[in-house]
Amino acid sequence: MAGSSFGTMFRFTTFGESHGTAIGCVIDGVPPRILLNENDIQYWLDRRKPGQSDFTTKRNETDTVKILSGVFENQTTGTPIGLLIDNIDQRSNDYSKIADQFRPGHADYTYQAKYGIRDYRGGGRASARETAMRVAAGAIARKILNSLVPNGITIRGAMIKLGPYSIDRIRWDWKQVENNPFWCPDAQVINEWATYLNSVCKNGSSIGGVVEVVAENVPVGLGSPVYDKLDADIAKALMSINAVKGVEIGDGFDVVALSGEENADTMHMCNDRLNFLSNHAGGIIGGISTGQNIIARVAIKPTSSISSKQISVDSHNHNVEISTNGRHDPCVAIRGVPVIEAMLAVTLADHLLRHRAQCGL
Amino acid sequence: MAGSSFGTMFRFTTFGESHGTAIGCVIDGVPPRILLNENDIQYWLDRRKPGQSDFTTKRNETDTVKILSGVFENQTTGTPIGLLIDNIDQRSNDYSKIADQFRPGHADYTYQAKYGIRDYRGGGRASARETAMRVAAGAIARKILNSLVPNGITIRGAMIKLGPYSIDRIRWDWKQVENNPFWCPDAQVINEWATYLNSVCKNGSSIGGVVEVVAENVPVGLGSPVYDKLDADIAKALMSINAVKGVEIGDGFDVVALSGEENADTMHMCNDRLNFLSNHAGGIIGGISTGQNIIARVAIKPTSSISSKQISVDSHNHNVEISTNGRHDPCVAIRGVPVIEAMLAVTLADHLLRHRAQCGL
Amino acid sequence: MAGSSFGTMFRFTTFGESHGTAIGCVIDGVPPRILLNENDIQYWLDRRKPGQSDFTTKRNETDTVKILSGVFENQTTGTPIGLLIDNIDQRSNDYSKIADQFRPGHADYTYQAKYGIRDYRGGGRASARETAMRVAAGAIARKILNSLVPNGITIRGAMIKLGPYSIDRIRWDWKQVENNPFWCPDAQVINEWATYLNSVCKNGSSIGGVVEVVAENVPVGLGSPVYDKLDADIAKALMSINAVKGVEIGDGFDVVALSGEENADTMHMCNDRLNFLSNHAGGIIGGISTGQNIIARVAIKPTSSISSKQISVDSHNHNVEISTNGRHDPCVAIRGVPVIEAMLAVTLADHLLRHRAQCGL
Amino acid sequence: MAGSSFGTMFRFTTFGESHGTAIGCVIDGVPPRILLNENDIQYWLDRRKPGQSDFTTKRNETDTVKILSGVFENQTTGTPIGLLIDNIDQRSNDYSKIADQFRPGHADYTYQAKYGIRDYRGGGRASARETAMRVAAGAIARKILNSLVPNGITIRGAMIKLGPYSIDRIRWDWKQVENNPFWCPDAQVINEWATYLNSVCKNGSSIGGVVEVVAENVPVGLGSPVYDKLDADIAKALMSINAVKGVEIGDGFDVVALSGEENADTMHMCNDRLNFLSNHAGGIIGGISTGQNIIARVAIKPTSSISSKQISVDSHNHNVEISTNGRHDPCVAIRGVPVIEAMLAVTLADHLLRHRAQCGL
Repeated sequence: MAGSSFGTMFRFTTFGESHGTAIGCVIDGVPPRILLNENDIQYWLDRRKPGQSDFTTKRNETDTVKILSGVFENQTTGTPIGLLIDNIDQRSNDYSKIADQFRPGHADYTYQAKYGIRDYRGGGRASARETAMRVAAGAIARKILNSLVPNGITIRGAMIKLGPYSIDRIRWDWKQVENNPFWCPDAQVINEWATYLNSVCKNGSSIGGVVEVVAENVPVGLGSPVYDKLDADIAKALMSINAVKGVEIGDGFDVVALSGEENADTMHMCNDRLNFLSNHAGGIIGGISTGQNIIARVAIKPTSSISSKQISVDSHNHNVEISTNGRHDPCVAIRGVPVIEAMLAVTLADHLLRHRAQCGL
Repeated sequence: MAGSSFGTMFRFTTFGESHGTAIGCVIDGVPPRILLNENDIQYWLDRRKPGQSDFTTKRNETDTVKILSGVFENQTTGTPIGLLIDNIDQRSNDYSKIADQFRPGHADYTYQAKYGIRDYRGGGRASARETAMRVAAGAIARKILNSLVPNGITIRGAMIKLGPYSIDRIRWDWKQVENNPFWCPDAQVINEWATYLNSVCKNGSSIGGVVEVVAENVPVGLGSPVYDKLDADIAKALMSINAVKGVEIGDGFDVVALSGEENADTMHMCNDRLNFLSNHAGGIIGGISTGQNIIARVAIKPTSSISSKQISVDSHNHNVEISTNGRHDPCVAIRGVPVIEAMLAVTLADHLLRHRAQCGL
Repeated sequence: MAGSSFGTMFRFTTFGESHGTAIGCVIDGVPPRILLNENDIQYWLDRRKPGQSDFTTKRNETDTVKILSGVFENQTTGTPIGLLIDNIDQRSNDYSKIADQFRPGHADYTYQAKYGIRDYRGGGRASARETAMRVAAGAIARKILNSLVPNGITIRGAMIKLGPYSIDRIRWDWKQVENNPFWCPDAQVINEWATYLNSVCKNGSSIGGVVEVVAENVPVGLGSPVYDKLDADIAKALMSINAVKGVEIGDGFDVVALSGEENADTMHMCNDRLNFLSNHAGGIIGGISTGQNIIARVAIKPTSSISSKQISVDSHNHNVEISTNGRHDPCVAIRGVPVIEAMLAVTLADHLLRHRAQCGL
Repeated sequence: MAGSSFGTMFRFTTFGESHGTAIGCVIDGVPPRILLNENDIQYWLDRRKPGQSDFTTKRNETDTVKILSGVFENQTTGTPIGLLIDNIDQRSNDYSKIADQFRPGHADYTYQAKYGIRDYRGGGRASARETAMRVAAGAIARKILNSLVPNGITIRGAMIKLGPYSIDRIRWDWKQVENNPFWCPDAQVINEWATYLNSVCKNGSSIGGVVEVVAENVPVGLGSPVYDKLDADIAKALMSINAVKGVEIGDGFDVVALSGEENADTMHMCNDRLNFLSNHAGGIIGGISTGQNIIARVAIKPTSSISSKQISVDSHNHNVEISTNGRHDPCVAIRGVPVIEAMLAVTLADHLLRHRAQCGL
């Protein structure tokens, strides 16, 4: 209950600070006899890895995951899966000068105030480094979804807004997402985005973004009303990611100006199958999946580490001036995409097992 | 783990269907020796009660709460508090004709698909009737917050958007919130909103809204990183409310277009006290409260029950035509305000006790 | 996390004091479409009811249970089941004189010390009255076990020791259990036990007992190593019952003097089926059910309420003399039998659903 | 919910198989600013280490623990503590021949039946190797108890029965416990026990034992009625340890033959302090600690691995003959002592934090 775990039947617990010895994760409740090896996890970790373009931090994290337990002869055994990634590139000296300074937008002050102590090196536990373990857990969650759901569940994220720039949804093409440094589904905006983000970089500044994530082929019936509604747990999962400040399901905030008629996702029978004629709800009604695509969006704030001088305070109650040089992403939303996908995957895996417990599959 | 409970150390569990015998709630973990009687809870329930204006359902729910346990001689005893509200105005006959129809936007289809059975009367468990118990739990949460935090925590909600109409934040006045049927803090828009909502009513249609909720005097340090961040749990709490489709903390989605400099909430010392110069973060950084006001916003969809004819499907896989007459709110966001306040209160109470467990108070 | 709930996927939460308005229970996670009505629960409650023989309290509890939610047209709906029993026979005046006295063996002192307040009437929350709700939850657990396990699971308890008197296991006959006031399976000891307990009664004294409970037709595979082993959860379930001071599985404490050879439950194939040649383990190895009968035993202390004068202390730190007159069971172990059965039933139901979540059924 | 975690506010999760890469543990909810380094944990691990006498397995486990996170500059930070012990002495070849055989008394059959797969090497997850992590978690729990409770809580275990041989409680001397290979508090029985256990060893057989564990200086008020009673959680904690078949609190099964008068722990005021005149209850009444010593006992079965030939079955449904040679403890109860102490420590630490959450300290 101290916050380091997520999920109930599919439950994972992470540990580790940015510049400690290692980060790790224990995943409990994984069904047995699912094929799994380290490459299955490494594949998704590599997508999150920094340094893959000009727009992500140059920090050198190889992020090589080791499976310590729970897998025998390439199959899950039903026992807890322990995962470990050693912290290779620790460079603690980069951070010593800010040991007692509270960087604006960072959790320095709040951790110090809550615990009376903090590992200040690289943000410690509050660093986005922890999200590597979310991606690892997400990789295993995907395995479960693909093992228990006929034809599997596909979960993909895309960046649809970079600062003031949006995509045109008409041009949405999932294939493009893999072909540009922004996970952007609209090929025509890439140059504009690159030019803009280069200028942000040059100024030592940063900018926010919006990521949309979609789960396809979700079975109808997932979700546990009324407090563990599927959308409530997705909201929690996504809001728990560093720098996220807003979460929408389906039409989200746009629903406000719709009339009841416009917002209704009407149904009809088509070839003996119930079909919805629209998906304003984003695939969830009454907290339970409808069988349509689940669609969520998150707002991610601009990176707090910027090179401009900022006034602030230190732990001795003195006013100070801070500027954070070093290896930082100008737009953390970009590296957020694999993490957001992962958190949707773990939420669905958890609810799939919970649904199996109560209702069978 | 079947979804009917919220919270960990302050934990409540609700039960009851819209047209069943009664709805109820058990609240566990309440600190002992807090003054509490039924009026303390009834006060907040009365604010949620329907039929208080032209714009809320005429359904006659007296919603009289009884305390069944956990309170002795007007003080909490530390044992679980059982609450009960009898369902008086059940009128089940209103609903018999839709027994096997799936109303668009309602949870009829998803409950049927998940469970293979549903109590169709008035939406059954999926009805917003359940939220009365959230308000009751919120009343007790407020008691805890006021008992353990010097000077108490004030939690207030306001409607800031009705369909296409917004307020002007410059005119925000909390006193106005109690003086109009919209919980609107901007006196100048009331007439416009009333005219607009009357026309929505007349058309048998409905519209959405945005509610903002603010907690004042929150201590620094609440929240359990990294999965039970305070904002993550607030997002879950709010998204679990019927009809909510989006949740923002602080600047929310507006943060996307801000630069790192614009978004930074810088600090300085002022009279030996650390002060923030802005609150884009909405009072939470790294998942932990900063001591500033906590600010959240939710998007609420238009009421799904409208009088227009809609195509749909029934449980025998036939296409049908539905129109939902009866006593419905044209804008459920209005009655959502006390529920949203309550859910913020319970989340804060839970995290206050969790913080006390790990760090003391 | 304040202790009023039991189980995870099958999870129930109770509330209510001995002399409050009512006691109640919420049961969450019940699979849908199980036939259930109030009589199904009342049947088991009636077995626990006091006043059925000379050896149980004369307190007049009709204990009529009402289902408030979660059941529609005699079937479970998958939503939480709310149960309520009104407290009819409250006679609060019986207890006023002990309002500030700490009765030896009762929880008066510990509740007062923990919470700084207590509902002293009839033991308040610490009263065995709460166990009525365990029996009610157990009735629903049995329904689940019988619905999901082919041929159902039979759970029966029997008293095998009354103070210094034991049964002869050779004469064990389940049919006898229903035919005497002791739930005793050995018809030949009944007279002796009755004579003995009458003398205990006459002296205003009390005595302890041992109850054995057996679950038959349990599927192999239930239990979640390593902390939620099936035997660990059974131990918790049984030790949580009022007055229980010891729990054994299988041979229990007798296993200590066995050699490895004697204790081994060897297996062989017989008609293509794996058979165990003995059951020292009580049906659980490595925390997982073996498919054999699950056998547990509990030690129950003598009733603490006795008529002899006892020295004690009151809440004003004065020495006092106490004697507890009134309607008390000379051996609470007797009325414990249905409660012990119920707690085994709920533990098995919970683990059955948990097993279904992870491994399917 | 898959069983690899223990506790709520002080919550730890273990992973690892006997012959996998490593075993590990994550401990969440530890209060910040407690002095902690690896030696503090290693000290307790060394007490559990095998090979310290003729009566424990010769398996060469150095069991060197590494702290991976949650500690900064020798203080806990409030973030999760990750612990790791590499498996050095894996000798997997010892076990290949029993890959598809079900050893009597071991969890081979039940794991295979539950999961359809198992890591058979050295018992895999079911091996007592996992208990090293319980001891590590217990070391941290002790730190918490000593940090939050004035003068700390002392938790000590002792073996009081070896097969048919008991101690004389009159001669109980805690100092002796550290001076013999049995953790036995009665110096006069050591020779007898040694002679007996040597003969058991020579026969390739094994024997059970009883361990008593005592917690001193426990504050009054710990425990969460009615399902998470302190004794219920202790029973679960102890029964979850490998080979445990029975748990008693206080007088345990002996209470059965006591009268109410004999069993009453009467109180009187002495020097303005409430005192109990006896402790039949073992320091817990109504599920809440009384402030007296907490006393529990566990029955541990004889080691299942014996060298005698035993009939059994393999995973291909064939009858087989098994004899387990190798490095095994003739009486696992001996090595159980530090584990039993640890499990009492973690249970008390969890309830101390839970009590602080609800009632303050």
